[in-house]
Amino acid sequence: MRSSALLLVLLAVVSHSHGKRPRDPLNSFYVQATVGQPWPQPQAIHTTPQQYGVHPAAFHFLVNQTSQTCDLLTSALDRYYKLIFYPYSYLNYILDPESVIDEIKDKPKKTLFDLRDTPLLKRLNVYIQEPCEQYPTLESDESYTIVVTSDSAVLEAVSIWGAIRGLETFSHLIYPDDNLGLAINQTTIIDFPRFQHRGLLLDTSRHFISIKTLKINLEAMSNSKMNVFHFHIVDDQSFPYESRSFPDLSGAGAYNQDHVYSQEDIASLIEFARQRGIRVVVEFDSPGHTQSWGRVIDILTHCYSGGKPNNEFGPMDPSRNSTFNFLKKMFSEVATVFPDHYVHLGGDEVDFDCWRSNPDVQAFMKQMGFGNDYSLLEQYYMQKVVDIVGSTGKGYAVWQEIIDNNVTVKADTVVEVWKDPYPDELARVTKLGYRTLLSTCWYLNYISYGKDWVNYYKCDPHNFAGTDAQKKLVVGGEACMWGEFIDATNVITTTWPRAATVAERLWSAANVTDPNAATPRLEEHRCRYLRRGIPAAPVNGPSYCDFEFNR
Amino acid sequence: MRSSALLLVLLAVVSHSHGKRPRDPLNSFYVQATVGQPWPQPQAIHTTPQQYGVHPAAFHFLVNQTSQTCDLLTSALDRYYKLIFYPYSYLNYILDPESVIDEIKDKPKKTLFDLRDTPLLKRLNVYIQEPCEQYPTLESDESYTIVVTSDSAVLEAVSIWGAIRGLETFSHLIYPDDNLGLAINQTTIIDFPRFQHRGLLLDTSRHFISIKTLKINLEAMSNSKMNVFHFHIVDDQSFPYESRSFPDLSGAGAYNQDHVYSQEDIASLIEFARQRGIRVVVEFDSPGHTQSWGRVIDILTHCYSGGKPNNEFGPMDPSRNSTFNFLKKMFSEVATVFPDHYVHLGGDEVDFDCWRSNPDVQAFMKQMGFGNDYSLLEQYYMQKVVDIVGSTGKGYAVWQEIIDNNVTVKADTVVEVWKDPYPDELARVTKLGYRTLLSTCWYLNYISYGKDWVNYYKCDPHNFAGTDAQKKLVVGGEACMWGEFIDATNVITTTWPRAATVAERLWSAANVTDPNAATPRLEEHRCRYLRRGIPAAPVNGPSYCDFEFNR
Repeated sequence: MRSSALLLVLLAVVSHSHGKRPRDPLNSFYVQATVGQPWPQPQAIHTTPQQYGVHPAAFHFLVNQTSQTCDLLTSALDRYYKLIFYPYSYLNYILDPESVIDEIKDKPKKTLFDLRDTPLLKRLNVYIQEPCEQYPTLESDESYTIVVTSDSAVLEAVSIWGAIRGLETFSHLIYPDDNLGLAINQTTIIDFPRFQHRGLLLDTSRHFISIKTLKINLEAMSNSKMNVFHFHIVDDQSFPYESRSFPDLSGAGAYNQDHVYSQEDIASLIEFARQRGIRVVVEFDSPGHTQSWGRVIDILTHCYSGGKPNNEFGPMDPSRNSTFNFLKKMFSEVATVFPDHYVHLGGDEVDFDCWRSNPDVQAFMKQMGFGNDYSLLEQYYMQKVVDIVGSTGKGYAVWQEIIDNNVTVKADTVVEVWKDPYPDELARVTKLGYRTLLSTCWYLNYISYGKDWVNYYKCDPHNFAGTDAQKKLVVGGEACMWGEFIDATNVITTTWPRAATVAERLWSAANVTDPNAATPRLEEHRCRYLRRGIPAAPVNGPSYCDFEFNR
Repeated sequence: MRSSALLLVLLAVVSHSHGKRPRDPLNSFYVQATVGQPWPQPQAIHTTPQQYGVHPAAFHFLVNQTSQTCDLLTSALDRYYKLIFYPYSYLNYILDPESVIDEIKDKPKKTLFDLRDTPLLKRLNVYIQEPCEQYPTLESDESYTIVVTSDSAVLEAVSIWGAIRGLETFSHLIYPDDNLGLAINQTTIIDFPRFQHRGLLLDTSRHFISIKTLKINLEAMSNSKMNVFHFHIVDDQSFPYESRSFPDLSGAGAYNQDHVYSQEDIASLIEFARQRGIRVVVEFDSPGHTQSWGRVIDILTHCYSGGKPNNEFGPMDPSRNSTFNFLKKMFSEVATVFPDHYVHLGGDEVDFDCWRSNPDVQAFMKQMGFGNDYSLLEQYYMQKVVDIVGSTGKGYAVWQEIIDNNVTVKADTVVEVWKDPYPDELARVTKLGYRTLLSTCWYLNYISYGKDWVNYYKCDPHNFAGTDAQKKLVVGGEACMWGEFIDATNVITTTWPRAATVAERLWSAANVTDPNAATPRLEEHRCRYLRRGIPAAPVNGPSYCDFEFNR
């Protein structure tokens, strides 16, 4: 599918607005949204002014007879039908499939009788080339094509994941129209992602976020074609992961027992993500950022002052075998709970002071011949952890400090760059031959007044001096929403639609970089979120959506 | 009541925490909330460790036989009973009084049998000295005292408004307790506001905000004892006010006809505010900020370039009588729709360029002998408007530019200071003898990362060089949430609890200034908002609430 270069050449990338809004010299005072433009911008899209009506009683999805199919496709078709025709009931439906579609709220604006003289789009034919994978991976093919002509449209994809991305795009092409109720234009799209890893990190340790809210966030990710949920599940502050092997970890380390993700919660979250082609990459950050782990299990370094333990704790204690025995058991469990090939091992911000203060650690340093170089101790720790996780069959990602501190890791490690100057670090990491992810410029938790998304939009993971081979090692990036000032009250409104601008950077062609051209499309996308029940906040200045939040 | 200086001296201001949370050396990693501490800090509060249980089946409000009473009191007692005992159903109830209390969600944690050996608080006796006013005013008395001893408590107030403030405080004193379900401590409080005008501005022109969301905001204001809703209802971008006299104003000037406040909407909002002792001060800003007014009614100045009208419009056109005839009719209507004594007339950011370009305005300047001094034209306009509004019997507030531009206004005008350096401006305005409001340091729409409320908390309206007489002219201040990047998705989470820190500055004693002391109380107040269904965002760093939002 990716090799359809000919068709790419044939299709001009046309931004064709079908706007029906009245022209008004005064409306330079607020942002005008596009109508029926997808977000993120497809690699190639051609539309014409030819409109078709779309009506729930006259439209259906059809799986091509020769297509591969599977439960993922069946449920995706069910979801997208509801999303297109019953948007106001959709969120309730996906959070609680027993809930009832609110026909009054979602009643189609036009009857079939109203549309009797109108050309209607009657079906979308879906065709998938290859058998469905059970879970998405870093290597999954997400390409697809859409052709909307006459009364029928076609969606073709190599994989189920491409079909899901294509269905999302298809749902963006359909727009509310005063004359037709819902309409779609004659359109041809060829599309595939520029980067394979388009991630979003949420931190559930500084503040707990309910599974319900995490699911709303996954739905929002899927609406912008993001495909990796980086689940920063535990940290110093709290340990909300309910471990089967070590239930005391959350028993003592969670804020309280209402602030715990049970095994069922996590399974349900992973399934919700899988349905949307989203990988769940969990992070168990160590040896630092682990204070909440150590409340009942003695694995942290005891800090000393004046020759005595001072009742403070440092990073994991690498001088004791018991630490690694614990980690073996812990990561064996994690390997079975989280199906994704990758586990994020953290490794950031390790403070050496407590290690330095502890006599047993000092003795261990001597025994190992590390001298006073505590980065060797860090390397020793990380290599042990990496071996433990490797032995479960998993791959791993780490924060950049591991490389900065010259720790040797396996060749297939993914290194996440989060510090400035990021171009230097990207060059350095890829020169060492590691695959890399960029997150430095996408720390969405650092809020500021105004159109701050323009800075996210301008940041590019290929913005560094390196060879083509080095550029290819950049697998994508992640928007990060750290939780110091974020919880269920504001995580969705603060993340969306700002994260969608990162999503477009990581999906669309490298030359899609003009924030002014993006603004009206982003405004439409925000209104689309609102119509779907997701409270995406205003980011472009004064504006309105036909359907506002919380009416 | 205010003269109870003796009792004030007798009561030490004691911050006594009844916290039952386990002590934990690791929880320095997150903020600990107080337990049962009111926000804003009362003028004087004394509590003891003596606890009483509070149970819905054993507690009732009682209006003292000799007390004044009225419908406002009856409905306040009904509301606070539900708020105290059915907090999770409360918001639904006040937004839709037909809705049903969700007994399952709100079931008391303890039965009366559980509490058989516990001292219980059985009643709150309410006593009001003076007959109820129908609407709160700038001069209303909000003082009250609360005494909780043995099995009965007493709330005394001069006015209904003081009783409402006292009920709010009483509801803060009651806290969830593992052993008692709900508990209250032996407490004595003497309380009154430091400033009479404790306002919050919302802007419904840059983005529309539904009446439902405006009511949630009023409830949040009442939870922090704020008493003025500054309703910046229209501006350049849109005109959502449905005028009886000029329905075309919203017909053409609203974003669309779903983005309009009907007369019924506004009446219902004003009643909701009145029930909470909140004044609704509406702002119809002119002569600038009026682009949306001029879409169908020809009242704006036509701008010229190259000797011809250029299809752009400027401020209201003061050279035509028709402008003032329109304003007469408009403000007569406004005077009947909004019962508060004050109307805010705006007057900020008037651009003279368009006036300068217009030949009719030029001719009028000549005729009036204004030379080239367009601030004289502004003064002419404002004095006409002020006379128009004055003739309806109303008082008025204006933004500081009116004074900066040396426009003479009536002595009872309230001048709102919004520019830096605010101490100079406060000194200047009060020296001229005008009453003044401060908002410069409380533009909450200017978000930034971290604990930004500390800056709001430090800002004081008496922080300027002036005589005691000048200080007395400062009637209070307003937190402003301008709407460029704010709509129903994020207005509550961005405003709360940040506006509550302004509320404490304006209510509590001048020496309540330590942000570190305030932090745990603010954290409790935030959790109180969540328990009441209002999504107040985290502002103190990592933390948790027993009841999180969106579970």
